[in-house]
Amino acid sequence: MSNEALIVFNPSGRRGRFPLGTPVLQAARALGVDLDSVCGGRGMCGRCQVDLCEGHFAKHGIHSVAGNLNAKTETEYAWELRRGPLVDGRRLGCSALLQGDVVIDVPPGSQVHRQIVRKRAEVVDIELDPMVRLYFVEVQEPDMYLASSDLRRLKEALTYEWHLGDLKSDVRVVQHLQAALRQGHWQVTTAVHNDERIIGVWAGLQEKIYGMAVDVGSTTIAAHLCDLQTGEVMASGGRMNPQIRFGEDLMSRVSYIMMNPGGDEAMTAAVREAVNGLAEDLAAEAGIGVHAIIEATFVGNPIMQSLVFGINPVELGGAPFALATDEAIDGVWATELDLVIHPNARVYGLPCIAGHVGADTAAVILSETPYLGEELMLIVDVGTNAEIVLGNRHRLLAASSPTGPAFEGAQITCGQRAAAGAIERVRVDPHTLEPRVKVIGCDRWSNEDEFAEAVAATGVTGICGSGIIEAVAELFLAGVISHDGVINGSLTRRTPRIVAEGRTWSYVLYQDDERTVRVTQNDIRAIQLAKGALYAGIKLLMEAFGTGHVDRIRLAGAFGAHIDVRYAMILGMIPDCEFDHVTAAGNAAGTGARIALLSRKARAEIEEVVRRVEKLETATEARFQEHFVAAMAIPHKSDPFPRLREAVDLPVAPVGGQDRARRSGGSRRVRLVAQPGNEEPRPPDAEPEARSEGDA
Amino acid sequence: MSNEALIVFNPSGRRGRFPLGTPVLQAARALGVDLDSVCGGRGMCGRCQVDLCEGHFAKHGIHSVAGNLNAKTETEYAWELRRGPLVDGRRLGCSALLQGDVVIDVPPGSQVHRQIVRKRAEVVDIELDPMVRLYFVEVQEPDMYLASSDLRRLKEALTYEWHLGDLKSDVRVVQHLQAALRQGHWQVTTAVHNDERIIGVWAGLQEKIYGMAVDVGSTTIAAHLCDLQTGEVMASGGRMNPQIRFGEDLMSRVSYIMMNPGGDEAMTAAVREAVNGLAEDLAAEAGIGVHAIIEATFVGNPIMQSLVFGINPVELGGAPFALATDEAIDGVWATELDLVIHPNARVYGLPCIAGHVGADTAAVILSETPYLGEELMLIVDVGTNAEIVLGNRHRLLAASSPTGPAFEGAQITCGQRAAAGAIERVRVDPHTLEPRVKVIGCDRWSNEDEFAEAVAATGVTGICGSGIIEAVAELFLAGVISHDGVINGSLTRRTPRIVAEGRTWSYVLYQDDERTVRVTQNDIRAIQLAKGALYAGIKLLMEAFGTGHVDRIRLAGAFGAHIDVRYAMILGMIPDCEFDHVTAAGNAAGTGARIALLSRKARAEIEEVVRRVEKLETATEARFQEHFVAAMAIPHKSDPFPRLREAVDLPVAPVGGQDRARRSGGSRRVRLVAQPGNEEPRPPDAEPEARSEGDA
Repeated sequence: MSNEALIVFNPSGRRGRFPLGTPVLQAARALGVDLDSVCGGRGMCGRCQVDLCEGHFAKHGIHSVAGNLNAKTETEYAWELRRGPLVDGRRLGCSALLQGDVVIDVPPGSQVHRQIVRKRAEVVDIELDPMVRLYFVEVQEPDMYLASSDLRRLKEALTYEWHLGDLKSDVRVVQHLQAALRQGHWQVTTAVHNDERIIGVWAGLQEKIYGMAVDVGSTTIAAHLCDLQTGEVMASGGRMNPQIRFGEDLMSRVSYIMMNPGGDEAMTAAVREAVNGLAEDLAAEAGIGVHAIIEATFVGNPIMQSLVFGINPVELGGAPFALATDEAIDGVWATELDLVIHPNARVYGLPCIAGHVGADTAAVILSETPYLGEELMLIVDVGTNAEIVLGNRHRLLAASSPTGPAFEGAQITCGQRAAAGAIERVRVDPHTLEPRVKVIGCDRWSNEDEFAEAVAATGVTGICGSGIIEAVAELFLAGVISHDGVINGSLTRRTPRIVAEGRTWSYVLYQDDERTVRVTQNDIRAIQLAKGALYAGIKLLMEAFGTGHVDRIRLAGAFGAHIDVRYAMILGMIPDCEFDHVTAAGNAAGTGARIALLSRKARAEIEEVVRRVEKLETATEARFQEHFVAAMAIPHKSDPFPRLREAVDLPVAPVGGQDRARRSGGSRRVRLVAQPGNEEPRPPDAEPEARSEGDA
Repeated sequence: MSNEALIVFNPSGRRGRFPLGTPVLQAARALGVDLDSVCGGRGMCGRCQVDLCEGHFAKHGIHSVAGNLNAKTETEYAWELRRGPLVDGRRLGCSALLQGDVVIDVPPGSQVHRQIVRKRAEVVDIELDPMVRLYFVEVQEPDMYLASSDLRRLKEALTYEWHLGDLKSDVRVVQHLQAALRQGHWQVTTAVHNDERIIGVWAGLQEKIYGMAVDVGSTTIAAHLCDLQTGEVMASGGRMNPQIRFGEDLMSRVSYIMMNPGGDEAMTAAVREAVNGLAEDLAAEAGIGVHAIIEATFVGNPIMQSLVFGINPVELGGAPFALATDEAIDGVWATELDLVIHPNARVYGLPCIAGHVGADTAAVILSETPYLGEELMLIVDVGTNAEIVLGNRHRLLAASSPTGPAFEGAQITCGQRAAAGAIERVRVDPHTLEPRVKVIGCDRWSNEDEFAEAVAATGVTGICGSGIIEAVAELFLAGVISHDGVINGSLTRRTPRIVAEGRTWSYVLYQDDERTVRVTQNDIRAIQLAKGALYAGIKLLMEAFGTGHVDRIRLAGAFGAHIDVRYAMILGMIPDCEFDHVTAAGNAAGTGARIALLSRKARAEIEEVVRRVEKLETATEARFQEHFVAAMAIPHKSDPFPRLREAVDLPVAPVGGQDRARRSGGSRRVRLVAQPGNEEPRPPDAEPEARSEGDA
């Protein structure tokens, strides 16, 4: 029998011969196999767990049996006593010693660079590759006969055990080093940033460190708390942005700063305080100390990102909207931002793209990765402004369009934020013109039995963004409003729901003893203005790209999550596209912040991508006004929307006969709940007030 | 006539041909000539001043006349109006345009990398090469049509105008950048650290930045304020170290920390507060704002250096005296140390060498540069411990010897700190055994007329370190005390100044109505112990080096400045050496801190040198005790001191007859004031008490 044995690792396929008695972990390291360890093979951390693959492996010429590893050791039993039993047959790689040829499987949980699966399967997964890693070492004790400092011996241990050379060290680490070494009886765990710099030290074995990915919105601050060693999300949560007391929307906050010297500092303090509260909440939820958070990433629109990092955003309040920086903000200390997480934690801010296109959009790009594929992707993130990204691996363009807050339910007569009691779904029967609605917090339609009881807790309080979009689209499909957005007042003959409101008409969507929710002509105008601005911005980017068609549309953020994409297209908010290629991206900004938290490569990637994004400024593009006017019509004055027409019978054909002819032919892959009637809706009655408004 | 002209620069000798009309500064830059400029050639800073060398330069084939430059320009007259007249004929290099062949002299004041002359002429001068430099730039204004951040355009300007690429920036700079750019009408001055990182920004032209070099002693904190662009010392000063309230000497302060949790933080706060006070004093003296100080270096013994940087020094209070770090502490922010200088200022701490050998010794090495030459240099810095450095360019050794505070006047019966009223000079007539003394703050000897009046202001209050050393050495030369350090009680027959003091004798050095200053047998023992420890440490290093002789001795610090080196050698504090090769080094630690402040290369140099210093630990060297015992005798039990004997008649020949024979022959290059008598001093009378003490 040879005094060496062959070991083959799965899934890498790496193989090599080692002397009998070699620990599996040591063989893995020698072969460059991705097998984790924090304690360096001392049987303490349990991160190097492996499975023996039993059987005959003809390919390798190996008969791999349990007896080809030593029996379970005292170290492993002791570990199980402390930490619970190992999965059946599983071994600690540092305790399992070669006794013969074996095939060893490294389960995903034991891999350092395991894959993090992004939400969309078609997108390349990213590798877990956090900026900060833990290394446990035993440090030589000092010796009168051999003068050498504690830091030098620590570094020597890190070089010897972990092959980390030329490390620098925070002076704050040096301040705590001697006590930690003595308290840990010369065993300490170090946190090393970017394989370059020691930023933390703990007595003994510290097994876990965490990171926080924060998406600072103007309304809500959302964060994920992640285990930096597994990528796992330990807790997620949100808080209202307390800056709301300085102004509801971004521009009113900037105005506040312009009028109130020191207002920026007050807002910076407010947002940081909220982030701290959120950090404490998430740490408590995950059952960890807030000081175990040693890395954080931040994304936000340009104004929020500026305020988090203590930059006065006043220049973003007016032309030319100059950013202080469009680079990533890297390596800022948590203490510089008055954060309560580990004082040596480093904070990374994703780069802003332009004065109106923030780090949140960069994060969306990182999450959606349009820059990786051939297909032309349109990403829309609607808030008070709509951030629009268009491109593929060859080119990437971005712009911001001033949609205003109508899509969020603001500036709508009965509008409100999306909250319990708000109408969020609307259907209008094209024959009876009778509506039915659904309300947030209640799973029945208003025409169903027991709706009144079900909704009693909250009542029906108003209509939110997705509700008003559906209402306008359904009224258009039912012929209540025209292609130009004018309510057909002559329909008062068919339904009592159309009522005069000053010199224009309104449609009564819902009524009970408490409240009347109606859609006014002004509301429709507000939606037309917002969707016209959005569509015009998209058209600008498409023109700049030289395309008339996009392959895929991703709707990011809360807007994208709650809207029914068909109505968005019927209304002409987004360009024509296959319905099943239009999908919600969820909180892509938060996901991007989390990806940047977990992957150094992702940071380099988004920094590089942002540098080559082409920025368009809608305010200075001459064609914007022209596109805007054309896009006021529903769905559009001239764009034919062929795919939409394939799926939905639109009541009015906006251009020449060919489209009208096509409309009643072809397949009907998607049908809305309400079948539109056969008759053409009549053109709106002559109504001078409404028409003059439409002409304006 | 050609449309090009030849320009030759002195002192570099660089030459080249340029189109007529080329500014001299531009030609200098193209040729790599060392000509300073902060404003980048805008006629604002006046740093690029040059002289035209008139005459025929056959070597270059140039007839250089004033007419070969343009006439003085409006820009130059405007500069003179603001800043005062230029030296006769001098021009601003940016305004002086080539009209023909010229020879141009770059005066030292216009050179970036000018030489800083160290105090010792034989040592290589260092180049002014500060870590932080100023760069003035004009930044392009933002433009709606071309999205780019202010930071990006600033960096582009720095690249375009100053060839500084890939700069990073403190987030604190980004926080102030936009306001500075607008306030300065798109002209700003940036401070760039190590050509890598923007650490400061000012609106408009900022012409001056300063650095502070601080030597933190356990008693005194001393600092130099330097102009970082000229190397000039603008102000120097000192403050008492307020830590004295926690303990007079180092060990009592460490004890305080051991007994009082949080004591280290209190001491750190105290020393930083004193440094801040000193910074404000020096800034006020130089007429600058304290925020103009943007760089600082610190040196100190290991305990002081630790406390400044917030490291608990408790491990330095006992074996094995482990340093937290023996590396330079680099790039710490002033705010991390609670300093009141520019908040973005970076602080550099020179490396400590070993647990007893601090950054102050590293600074002394940097100042004295023993590592550059062939000659074997011994550097002695005496405090409570004596730091000893021995070596040359081949090897460098360092140790610390526990001399105790006797050399500072402590543990001496009538001892005191060196202050007005303290006896600092002593002469004893070998015939009459009468003394005369000099007192700090009075320039008359005590036997001169009007001494009493001259000294009346302070009185004679005690004896300081240099005084006690001279007293013991003079008493030895006069035969009052023996080779073994015993006072000869039988001399009571010759002088009333020898008096019984308990069971031993004392010598009355000074007496008036107010006070009696005497030298007791215990005082002599204390000096013997101290000098024995010092000499033993030196001997250890010499043995380790394998030498019996040193070429040069430098006495650093206050001790070296006040002691008469001949007495130090007569007493056997330092080894035998040519008298004129034994010199005081002054505040070499402070000088080293200043060199590190002004030169990046010097920092790299001392870091490299410190890494290769061989450390000896006197406490664990078996030979130390042996050397110590032999060195208790005056000057030494066995070492022959041939060069000392050439210069001074020593009363007792310590070893065999050959030295005694030589003693009265040979040249007498140096004569002490008092001629020793011919007769051999008698051995001390049989005096059981004294002898038993001497034998102990």
